Order: sequence, then C-alpha cells, then structure tokens
Amino acid sequence: MRRPAALSLILCASLLPAQTPVAPLTGFTTEGATREYSLEQKFDASLNRRNLDEWLKEFSAKPHHLGSPAGKVIAEKIASMLKSWGYETEIETFYPLFPTPKTRLLEMISPEHFTAKLSEPAVEGDRTSGHVEGGLPTYNAYSIDGDVTGQLVYVNYGVPADYEKLAEMGVDIKGKIVIARYMGSWRGIKPKVAAEHGAIGCIIYSDPRDDGYYQGDIYPKGGYRPPDSAQRGSVSDMPTYPGDPLTPGVGATKDAPRPAYDPASLKANKSITLTRIPVLPISYGDAEPLLRNLGGPVAPPNWRGSLPITYHVGPGTATVHLKLEFDWKLTPAYDVIARLRGSERPDEWILRGNHHDGWVFGAMDPLSGTVTTLEEARGLAELVKQGWRPKRTLVYCIWDGEEPMLLGSTEWAEQHEAELRQHGAVYINTDATGRGFLDVGGSHTLQQFVLQSARDVADPVHKISVLGRREAAESAEAGKKADFELEALGSGSDFTPFLQHVGVATLNFGFGGEEQYGVYHSNYDSYDHYVRFEDPDLVYCLTNVQFGGRLMLRLANADVLPFKFDALSKTIAGYASEVKKLTDDMRRQTEFKNQMIEDGSLKAAADAREPFVVPEAKAPVPFLNFAPLENAVAKLQASADGFSKVDPLKLDDAHAAAFDAILMHAERALLLDDGLPRRPWYRHMLYAPGFYTGYGVKTLPGIREAIEQRNWSEAETQIGHVATALNQLSNEIDRATAAAK
Amino acid sequence: MRRPAALSLILCASLLPAQTPVAPLTGFTTEGATREYSLEQKFDASLNRRNLDEWLKEFSAKPHHLGSPAGKVIAEKIASMLKSWGYETEIETFYPLFPTPKTRLLEMISPEHFTAKLSEPAVEGDRTSGHVEGGLPTYNAYSIDGDVTGQLVYVNYGVPADYEKLAEMGVDIKGKIVIARYMGSWRGIKPKVAAEHGAIGCIIYSDPRDDGYYQGDIYPKGGYRPPDSAQRGSVSDMPTYPGDPLTPGVGATKDAPRPAYDPASLKANKSITLTRIPVLPISYGDAEPLLRNLGGPVAPPNWRGSLPITYHVGPGTATVHLKLEFDWKLTPAYDVIARLRGSERPDEWILRGNHHDGWVFGAMDPLSGTVTTLEEARGLAELVKQGWRPKRTLVYCIWDGEEPMLLGSTEWAEQHEAELRQHGAVYINTDATGRGFLDVGGSHTLQQFVLQSARDVADPVHKISVLGRREAAESAEAGKKADFELEALGSGSDFTPFLQHVGVATLNFGFGGEEQYGVYHSNYDSYDHYVRFEDPDLVYCLTNVQFGGRLMLRLANADVLPFKFDALSKTIAGYASEVKKLTDDMRRQTEFKNQMIEDGSLKAAADAREPFVVPEAKAPVPFLNFAPLENAVAKLQASADGFSKVDPLKLDDAHAAAFDAILMHAERALLLDDGLPRRPWYRHMLYAPGFYTGYGVKTLPGIREAIEQRNWSEAETQIGHVATALNQLSNEIDRATAAAK
Repeated sequence: MRRPAALSLILCASLLPAQTPVAPLTGFTTEGATREYSLEQKFDASLNRRNLDEWLKEFSAKPHHLGSPAGKVIAEKIASMLKSWGYETEIETFYPLFPTPKTRLLEMISPEHFTAKLSEPAVEGDRTSGHVEGGLPTYNAYSIDGDVTGQLVYVNYGVPADYEKLAEMGVDIKGKIVIARYMGSWRGIKPKVAAEHGAIGCIIYSDPRDDGYYQGDIYPKGGYRPPDSAQRGSVSDMPTYPGDPLTPGVGATKDAPRPAYDPASLKANKSITLTRIPVLPISYGDAEPLLRNLGGPVAPPNWRGSLPITYHVGPGTATVHLKLEFDWKLTPAYDVIARLRGSERPDEWILRGNHHDGWVFGAMDPLSGTVTTLEEARGLAELVKQGWRPKRTLVYCIWDGEEPMLLGSTEWAEQHEAELRQHGAVYINTDATGRGFLDVGGSHTLQQFVLQSARDVADPVHKISVLGRREAAESAEAGKKADFELEALGSGSDFTPFLQHVGVATLNFGFGGEEQYGVYHSNYDSYDHYVRFEDPDLVYCLTNVQFGGRLMLRLANADVLPFKFDALSKTIAGYASEVKKLTDDMRRQTEFKNQMIEDGSLKAAADAREPFVVPEAKAPVPFLNFAPLENAVAKLQASADGFSKVDPLKLDDAHAAAFDAILMHAERALLLDDGLPRRPWYRHMLYAPGFYTGYGVKTLPGIREAIEQRNWSEAETQIGHVATALNQLSNEIDRATAAAK
Repeated sequence: MRRPAALSLILCASLLPAQTPVAPLTGFTTEGATREYSLEQKFDASLNRRNLDEWLKEFSAKPHHLGSPAGKVIAEKIASMLKSWGYETEIETFYPLFPTPKTRLLEMISPEHFTAKLSEPAVEGDRTSGHVEGGLPTYNAYSIDGDVTGQLVYVNYGVPADYEKLAEMGVDIKGKIVIARYMGSWRGIKPKVAAEHGAIGCIIYSDPRDDGYYQGDIYPKGGYRPPDSAQRGSVSDMPTYPGDPLTPGVGATKDAPRPAYDPASLKANKSITLTRIPVLPISYGDAEPLLRNLGGPVAPPNWRGSLPITYHVGPGTATVHLKLEFDWKLTPAYDVIARLRGSERPDEWILRGNHHDGWVFGAMDPLSGTVTTLEEARGLAELVKQGWRPKRTLVYCIWDGEEPMLLGSTEWAEQHEAELRQHGAVYINTDATGRGFLDVGGSHTLQQFVLQSARDVADPVHKISVLGRREAAESAEAGKKADFELEALGSGSDFTPFLQHVGVATLNFGFGGEEQYGVYHSNYDSYDHYVRFEDPDLVYCLTNVQFGGRLMLRLANADVLPFKFDALSKTIAGYASEVKKLTDDMRRQTEFKNQMIEDGSLKAAADAREPFVVPEAKAPVPFLNFAPLENAVAKLQASADGFSKVDPLKLDDAHAAAFDAILMHAERALLLDDGLPRRPWYRHMLYAPGFYTGYGVKTLPGIREAIEQRNWSEAETQIGHVATALNQLSNEIDRATAAAK
C-alpha cells in the first residue's frame, strides 16, 4: 500500500537523548549546531514554572491599563527584574493621547424604554471580578464624543459587503444608529464603514453565537462570555496608522509637536485616526432588547446569531439614544527597554517584545505573554551567568499602551526609526498565549528558521514536537498532508511598526486553539479564569518560553543570520497568482451579474414580497498588465536559487559580518518610501492590515485592495511599485550571494 | 463584451398572442402543436381561482386524517365532484394497519422533574386551531409501544455520521434514550439508526434553527413554528418498503393474508417496518428543559441549534421516562379513482395523483395540491364538454393515507400491478404546493418534455416563464448560467410505488421556496395560515393547475409519447462518474486517515482535555471493476443517439401505436425482479430513497450504497445489475428506433 508522506512526529530535539546526532540548523555549522543544542538544554533546565504563576498572579491583581497606578508599578517592577538579571534597562516614556470615559449612556426610547446596564457584575469564584475599583468600564477607545438619537439598524459584522446587502434590501443607513456584532473584521472597521454610509452612531455587541453560550458553557461554569460582559477595545483607524493619533510617524515625546486635542478640535480634525461617529460596545444581555424590537426585513441567514429571537434588520420602531463623553488626556506610556549587548556583532539587534498593559486585569491578554517573555529573558540571563554571551545584541521591550493602539511600540519604533533601520535584524513579538497549537506568522525569509525551532520543541501534553502537532491538526482538518507555512501578518499587536513601518524582519507567535477564552477585554480576563480555562498548570506557557528562547538563542548565536529566500519567493509567486485570479474571477462575475441585471433575471430571481433593489451594473473589469509583477517574481526566484547555492558558513568572521549586514537590511528592500495609497505610514509592499479588515492581512496590499475597490489604474501603478520592491530585494539577495562567494 | 448565454425569460407561450409561431412540442407535428396550444388556451380560460379557495376552505375545516369521519366525507365529496364532471369514478377501499395514540408520556425525572406538554394550544387569528376535537395529537405513526427510562443523549440529526462522531467522543448509546433534531434526514431514519446503536427510545424535536424563530417570525406574527408546535409524521421503515406494514407487495384488501397485529405480535415481528424502539416528536418548548440539562461534551459546532443554551451531547444527569401506547387497528383507506377513457389509445394510461388525507387540517399538506389537482381535472372535463377527447386514458387518483406511509397509493399500485405494468405510461404526482419556483423531479426520459411545459407557463407575479424564473434563481445562486435539469426522485410522496416498484415513468412537481411554511404536520397547517403565508390569493396554485394541465393535455394528445433518451443517458453517465469518483475519494481518504491513526497524529491533533477515542483503521478501498457499467453507459449513449435520428411523427397511426407501446414500457426495463439488496420491494436500478437518508434520493442506489457501506463485493455485483438494466433499456430503445423507421 502506498503511504502518504510521514508526519513530523518523531524528530524533536528536546525529546531526544543528548548524544543523538543533531538536526541541521540554518546559519550554524555542524559544530555550531552541536554547541547550540547543548546550550538550549541548559536554557530549558533553568526555567521555572513557578515564576510564571507568581508573576501572572501578581501583575493581574489590579486593573493595569495605560495610565493606571498599577500599570506604572508593573513597568517599574519589570524594569527592576530585568536589571537584576543583568540587562541594561531603562524606562522610556511617551505621551500619547488616551481617552477615558466620563459619560456612557445607551437607552432605547421607543417602542419601550430600556437603559443598557453597561456593567460587568462580580462572578462567583472569580476573585478579582468584585474588585474593579480604578478599572476602566466597557468602552471603545478613540470613539469621538457624541450625543445622538436615531432609529436602529442591524448591520451584521458591519463590513462593506454587509452594506451592499442592506442596499439590496432597500435599507438606508443615513441618519441611523447601527448595531453591529463583533467579529468578521477588526472592531475599528465597523464605525469607519458605518460613518462612510452616513450612520450617526455605532453600537458593537458580542453575539452569543460568536462569543457566548453557543461556543460553550458561560463563565463561571465554563469559560465563555456571560450575558453582561462586553468587549472593550480600540476603534481608532489602525489601518491608516497605529500609535498616537496626534503624532503619526514621530515619537510622542513630551515636546513633540501635536495638534489641539480638546473635544471640539478633535471632532473638527479629519486628518487623525479618531472615529467620525460615537461608538460603544455592549453585552448580549444589553443587546437583546434592542434587537428584539427591530422591524424591517428578516436578516439574511448568515447574519443571524444565537439570541432566541428572529433577527430583523430594521429600521422599525426601535429608536435609541447614545451619549458618550470622554476625558481626552496625554497619558504617560512606560516602555521597559532592556539590552544584552552582543559580544561580536553588537550592531545587529534581535528585538523581542510583549506589552504589559491590559484593559482591566488582563491575565490572558497580555500577561500570559508578558510573563513568558520575562521568564525567557531570565533564562537567557542564567546562561550569561554560566559564561555565555550572545554574538548579537538582544533587546527586550515590554511595551505599554498596546491596548489603546500599539502606542508604546509604535512611538518607540518611530522615535528610534533611524537606529532600527541601521541595526534591526529581527523583531519577535508575543502577546496573549494559551493551550493548544503553535500559531506563528511573519516574514517568509524566516520560514525555514521557524520550522526548525518548532521541530525542536516538544508539546507538553502530547510529547511530540509542536511542529508535528500543528501539522497533525492541519492535516486532520484538510484531510491530506499539510506542510508548515508561516502565516502573513496583518496587525493587532506590537509587531506592526517594526514590520510594516520600518521593515525589520518580524515574527509573531503564541499557543492557542484549546482555551475557553470567552472573556477577551472584559473584567473576567483574570488569573482565576486563566488557570481554569486558558492554560491550567501553565505548561503551554513554559513551552512558549522554550520556543521563544530557541528563536532568540539561535538568532543570537548563528554564524550568519538564518534568512532564506526560497519560501519567500514561492509565497510571493502564490500571491501574484491570487491577485491575477482575483481579477479574472471579478471579470467573469461582473459580466454575469451585469447580464442578469440587464435582462431582468436578477429581479426575477427575488421574492416579490420582500424589498429588493436591483444593484447598478458595474463597469467591466479590464485586463491588467501583470507583466512587471511576473517578471519581478521570476527574477526573485532566480535570485533565491542563486542564494541557495552558496555556503556562507565557509566565510571568515569579517566576511560573515559583511554578509549578515546585507541580510539584516534585506526586509527593508520591500519597503517603498511613499507607502501604500492613502496610508503612507504603511510602507511594506507585501504585508499590511486590510483597509477594510483591520487585523486581517492583505498580502500585496496595494495591488489587492486596488483590485477589490475596482480602481484599475491604481492597481497597475501598484503592480509597478511591488515590482520595484521585489527587484530591490532581488538585488540585495544577489549582493549577498556575491558576498558569500 | 462577451455575453453569457441569455436566460429563458422571453419565450412563454401563455404570455404570447395566439398567432405567434408555436415553439416545437415533442411528440407533436407542427399542426398538432398548433392545435395543442389552442386547446391549452381554452383550458386556461376555464380555470377558476374561486374553486381553489372554496375547496381549500371546506376540506380544511376539520381534522381529516386517515380513518377520520371528515376524511371519509372528503373522499366521498371528491368522488361525487369527479363523477359530476364526467369521470368514471369509484372509491376503492384498502385496510392497512394504522396506529393512533392511547398513551403519550414524556417526563424528565432527573435532575429536576419536568413533564412535556405535548400539545399545541390555540393561536390567535387561526380559526381552526381552537377546534381540534377528533384530531390526532402529536405522535409518530408506526412507533412501537414502549415504556422506557434512561439517560438522555443528544445525537444531532441522528444519521450514521453522527454516531461515528459520538463514538469518537466516547459516548455510548446502549441503553440510552436519544434526542434527535428534525431535518438532516427523513424522520424515520432517526429511530432506525438509534436502535441499530442500542438506544431504547427516541425523541425527535424541531430545533428553532431549522424550524422556528431562527428562520423568521413565529406564528401568528409570521409563519414559522411557535414554541409548542411539534411535527407529526410516520417513522416506519419506508426505505425497506412503504405502504401497509402488514402486506408488503400485495394490496391490503379486506381479506389479504396478514400477520397478527396485536401489540405483542407486532413487537416480536422483526420482518415488518415498525420501529424497534418507541419514538415521540416534541416541540422546542418541550425540548429546551431536556437539552439544557444534558451533561457530557459540548456538541460539535454543526450540531448546535438556536436555543439559548450551550448544546451538550450528554449523557449526564438528564434522565427521562418515555411511555407510549397505541391503538393498533386496520383502518379503511378511501382512494378515489376517476377515469377519462382515451379515444384512440385507451390502453395507454396517464395517471395523475395527489392525496387527500392530512395530519390535522392539512391546508398546505396536502390540500393545496388536492384542490389544484381537482381544478385541473375539472378544466379537462370542461374541454370534454367542448368536444375534446383525450387520445390516451387519463386516471385521476386522489389517495388516502399518504401521511402514515403512502398507504392508499402503495396498496392500489400493488393491487393493480399487473395492469399498471401493461398500461402505465406516465404517473404524475403532486402534494403540498406554495409560492415561488417550480420544483420538479422524475424520470429523465421526460426532461425535455417537462422543460417545454415549464417554458410555456407564466409565473403569475413576475410575468416570465416558470422555466425562466427557475433558471434565473439557480443562476443567481450559482453565479453562472444554470440550465434546467430534472431532479432525481427519492421518496416521501405517492410517486414511490409507481416509479420504484412498478416502473412507470414518473413526474412529481410543485411550487415553493417563498412560503413561510413553519407549520408542517402541525395543528396550524390551516386555511388561515395558508392564505397569509403560503400562497395568498392562490395565484401560484392556479399556475400549478396550468402546469399540471399542460403535462396531462400533452401526454393525452401527443402523436407519440414524448419520451427522449439524451438527457437520461447524459444523466446516467454523470451518476457513473460520481460513483467511480466516490470510490477514488474514499480510497484516498481511508489511506490518509489510516496513516494518521497508525502514526498517532490523529490523537495528537485532538484536545487532550476532551474525550477522544481514536477510531479503528478501516480496510483499504480496492479498485472496483466499473467496466460493465461503463460499457452499458456507452451502449445507452449510442442507442439514445440512434433514437434521436429517427422521426416517429411520420408513422401512421398503427405504427405510432406500436412505437408508443415500446416507449410506454421503457421505464420497466430499468427494473430488476430481485430489486435492491435487503429491500426487494425497490426494483428500480436508477432511483431509490436512501437506506439512511429516507426522502433523499440515492441514484444508482445498489452501487452507491454498497460503496458507502464498504461492501465491495456487493458493489461489484450491483455494477453488474445496473449494467443489465441499462442494457435492457438500450435494447428497448433500439427496438423503438427500428419501429420508427
């Protein structure tokens, strides 16, 4: 019987006896790899799960959002820990704009009166949930102030396709207040698209289907979201630029120039990233009376959630009043920056970040990641005590203000952009982490490197490699052998400024998929919840430390930086095929739909008893000139092939350092100074958060979004830009190949 | 710009002025077609929507199930109507076994006590819902008697794949009472599969996701199922044989030999089609307390419905007690049979059927179909009064006892099998009908014939042909031009004995897709509901009459029977490809899954905190010899090609009659005397209800189900059987071709 390719279940260095012949490590000679494996065993031996538990409990004891007293205490505690372990540590402070709520009122005034609770009560067995003094209530940061009354309309996830559907149903959004459910896009997209369609206010709620009892038992019986819990979170226009709304592109230092930020000035200033309409998140307990009273058409099947009602779209008798006022203040953000200087190539920086601020207690988000990052830093410091020194400089960055909008990381990266462009080799990010499977994305130049680390770390429960476990799950899901691939990164955590603004090769990872994490950005994201439902015994947290530690140690010690270009060129070739196919599919679909509009059959297919507005025919989709992209992809493949044939490990130290210097800057070649259309802050030509998805990545974003928006001339311009970036990269690869000879 | 093929929106004879050149009609000369179109215009002119309204209201005024006084009155009324219009009419009576409930008790005895209501209260504005005296309560016919107590387990739709999933979750069904939701299979499959897995009782409920508020507003605000409504229905083993459980294969006449049918004998008799365990249908109002108290694993995502709970699988603390006793009686079924004798070929019968019994008031099911069939018969009788005579004999059959198990139709077809084999040309069936799109299935020899009738009847709202409207909807759904295809028939209405037992070419049609029909088999399937939510103004009912009338008139009048074999041979070739691909897919999937079982990766992919039992590896899937099937398909295509080249319209009357006689018997060539494995009653080699789907058709059932059940030697035997049947048909086609020369 033919056997499918075997899964990667066996080879896992951390499960093998020490004397087993080592698997190859990119960037290392065989001897170097042997030394490296030995060092990693020492690293593992130094780790202590009790540290994780102790720090997680301590840091999650009080609300520790940006600007809170506890947040400052935590930053200082982390700085003192890192200092005590031997890191050159400082706290660098920025002053971004950060609004906190003064007034939050949501009431239904017709057909009956109902005032939303907007509060999360204490839960039995959750010790911190009864002690929320000083914590932030449920709100969306960077909503503008507002006091609006209007008919309510349900807009599903509130993404552009939902508004196309509403138009077909004959529902006009102008002057209405919309209610959107969470998920389906990053939350900040919802008020942005609502405002584009003329809405005057936006409510976002967590439907139990996506985030509540449909998923599993609710807290405290299970881990899922209870009826009164709402999801806090930022709604600024992240896809235009993250960080402080007042200081795009420059560090928000005390004296940075910034526009006026009184409420009236903020409302008038259309060039910054605040929402255009007031926005408030609510619980499904608060949403049910509103949704139950909507009139109008029944919502399409894929719009319906799990409340025990018939979902209608509205408008109807349901009229609501939303009033929001915020305290708009510059608020100090405390970034803890800790360095371990490289012994041989100190000017090559390996950066490692995780934020420390939470929305309330933030045990899962971010502290699970914070404490694993700290234990990783401590483990490396232990090796230093045993005589080890990293070849390259390691920089640990424990960010503040990630929750409001990647503030600490963005302001720091903007402030230090020149240094980062010169010294930044790799930035590795983590955030919340739980039980389950390795989840890892980033620059495809690092795919092989990441695969090797995943191969060499054991799953704590299943005793196979985390690579094998992930491939097993993906294979089981796909019904055929699934090979490891690095995901492309969109946004939503602190990697964004490094990858997409400065062009430092980036990774972002964590473990997950087996939690009952129904308390995202709520009062209940607590220590008690974490150790019941996210990672009891913190065994996956420890695995996270082992994995992160390997990434850091290998990058610190490798003879040459472990960048490879085969996976990158293959991945980009795939993206190029996708955008071409997207155009072809749109052409065929447009032609067919126009035909159905013109001959009346679209109207004929619809139920005459339901409102249906036949959409306008769209202009035909032209054939685009993809040749510059295709030629650049071919050139990149040739360069990657050439690179794969040379052996830089034969170089002497000086030449290896010169080779490294080229590789370290390679990711920068994928940036263009002008950035993406209408959002120049985003400069990377391969990866960006989608303008209408938020967290979700758009690869080849300039091309793909121009096509999606049917802006054909821009699509051709962007094809040229991507080709330019790819050619820049090919030239750098060729330079590296020459330097390795 | 290239234009996709235009949709069939324009040509619609009933919308065109009379003098427009006529579209060709299969089986007619041009002159014959002209006469035919003219006749059809007279037919349309004679129709009267008020008749439909009057009869619908009258027949739905009282509960009229099999054995009810009102049922007998309706049969007699229908007989007198048909007689008064000039049909030779008789009532033919059979005596099938029919159980009605004496005891219905469902209670939860742990963790709290709850007694299911099992009743449907009166609804405001629904005039009959408060007058259910003499009506049948909610129950499943042909459940055996039983008194069982056990832990409850939720089994989703209760189909075999669901039990595989339960086994993976480590849930044992033995000794348990299962609760399954309606839909996903015909209801009788659920207790059958449950009993196969060792369950001792079965509850079936209507989840609001499939049949309730998730779909739309509930009755009386909208048309969807209210919380206390339950779906009655038969649960006998229809896929083994329909009709009277006591008299398979022979008419249940008064004196037919039959086994004992006291409760004890019924329980002991394993060769008849009663369930093996007691079964009761309940409402979602009654189901919610039961489901809320289930323990065990959380149900997989696609098992979860729309109740406001976390769906668990069980077992847990929920223990229920189910007690059912029935009154087992032979009950007279009154079939109304009405003939209009053919003038030229009286020995060729065109049969037309619809049942008259309902579960309660049965306005939609079956009376919407009953009254349209009667108006159609009346319209033809009007033409007779104007001098027209059908060439062939028309037989209108208004069946009794369809709801319990196609009793009236099956017993009649069994009783008259010999005549039907000799004279049966076509059987046309209808049942419930509503607003929307033409839904039509049957023998693919009639595909072109049906397409022409659909082309020539106008949608009453959209003023395009019902063909064009259907193609528009299917095209809009598919995103590309969808051509009309006849569906293959499974079971669930009175066509089954004619097509699958006797081999009469069959059609089944109705209109639907735009109703709010949430009252199926409940007290609320009333006149008031029908005219608010199913077909207000009965305009689609009238269209149904126009369509059915055309089918009957054309079959009555055609110079030669309008059978064609191109669509049939193309369709069978498609089925042959499907079963081959099914085997190949199963081979690949089995191999891959076995590999994942053996190397541990299936276990590794699972969450260690959830129960997961790794399934046994399955034997590899061999390569089957499909050659006999492929050769038979090739031969059939050649025969169909040959047939399409001759012109039978040139034959004189005697030769045309001889040609007809061959065609009339062609469908019989697709039957084999031995029938399908383990269910010899089903003899058709192309179409059968699935053994584990019920209503859902299995095409090439012998082959397909053997493959699905991994019975490889049976699959090869069945390939041979299907080839034999196809070769029989090819020979008949060749005979017809020769006869037309």
